[in-house]
Amino acid sequence: MPDLHTGVTALAPLLGTWIGRGTGEYPTIEPFGYLEEVTFSHTGKPFLVYTQRTRSEDGQPMHAECGYLRSPAAGRAELVIAQPTGVTEIDEGTISTGTSTGTGTGTGTGTDTALRIELRSTSIGLSSTAKVVAAVHRSFHINGDELTYRLDMSAVGQPMSHHLAATLHRTR
Amino acid sequence: MPDLHTGVTALAPLLGTWIGRGTGEYPTIEPFGYLEEVTFSHTGKPFLVYTQRTRSEDGQPMHAECGYLRSPAAGRAELVIAQPTGVTEIDEGTISTGTSTGTGTGTGTGTDTALRIELRSTSIGLSSTAKVVAAVHRSFHINGDELTYRLDMSAVGQPMSHHLAATLHRTR
Repeated sequence: MPDLHTGVTALAPLLGTWIGRGTGEYPTIEPFGYLEEVTFSHTGKPFLVYTQRTRSEDGQPMHAECGYLRSPAAGRAELVIAQPTGVTEIDEGTISTGTSTGTGTGTGTGTDTALRIELRSTSIGLSSTAKVVAAVHRSFHINGDELTYRLDMSAVGQPMSHHLAATLHRTR
Repeated sequence: MPDLHTGVTALAPLLGTWIGRGTGEYPTIEPFGYLEEVTFSHTGKPFLVYTQRTRSEDGQPMHAECGYLRSPAAGRAELVIAQPTGVTEIDEGTISTGTSTGTGTGTGTGTDTALRIELRSTSIGLSSTAKVVAAVHRSFHINGDELTYRLDMSAVGQPMSHHLAATLHRTR
């Protein structure tokens, strides 16, 4: 296993495989729940590899996406994603790090690494058969071994609206 | 393992892990060789999952990309890709299938499944720190357990020029 590239040291709290549950909603659809697995890994180069897949409560595959998380400058993040729906997405924004004092789930010290990433789409690509996605906002918050994220989007003619939120826990 | 979705039956000859060697060139760089591993897999949904990584002859990681291959209509293909260089790419084009009579590498019948996919970029996304890629042409040719591909691109101010070619063999 190569050492983590110093260009992505700030992203180290994301490394691992995370599983949990999320909920989805949008003005055009019925609310739904899902199971999710997210992995952030690395190859020694200055980016993390991101893979995500969700499935329904009965185990059927739902969404998937893959891509790369970069930090081209201190405090800056770029997420570069492909989706099997015929959509590509580049999101750019900020990384904030710190520590937080937990309320009981810590492993003894009472202090966990905290990381917050706030991103907004700067480029959306659509294949000729894809549904129209106009803009996406994503936020990730890591507190120790808990990852929460939220995704809002403007799509299929709707204004920016809440779409997804999930809470995942690191499994390895 | 779920059954392959009927929407991607034409892409079945791609399934597997492919390894081999390639060569790269471009008007702005010195020619280079590389080792490559490509995987096409599926989840039972109407797309293939594509992952690719290359490394130098001495084992150092070089490029990587990931994404999805769709066939939204008979004979049509869409490749949706994210790259750690801050580039996304959607390529669209045609799938041609047939059989070919080999000249000695067959497994007894002398006839292998042949598949040709010809793609041109319809959308390129660039993060604010990415080098400029303007357009990409990709072609894949499968003949039994051999996959060859060619990639031409217009980037960093250059006209459409040959960039990559590789010959890979299916390992599983």
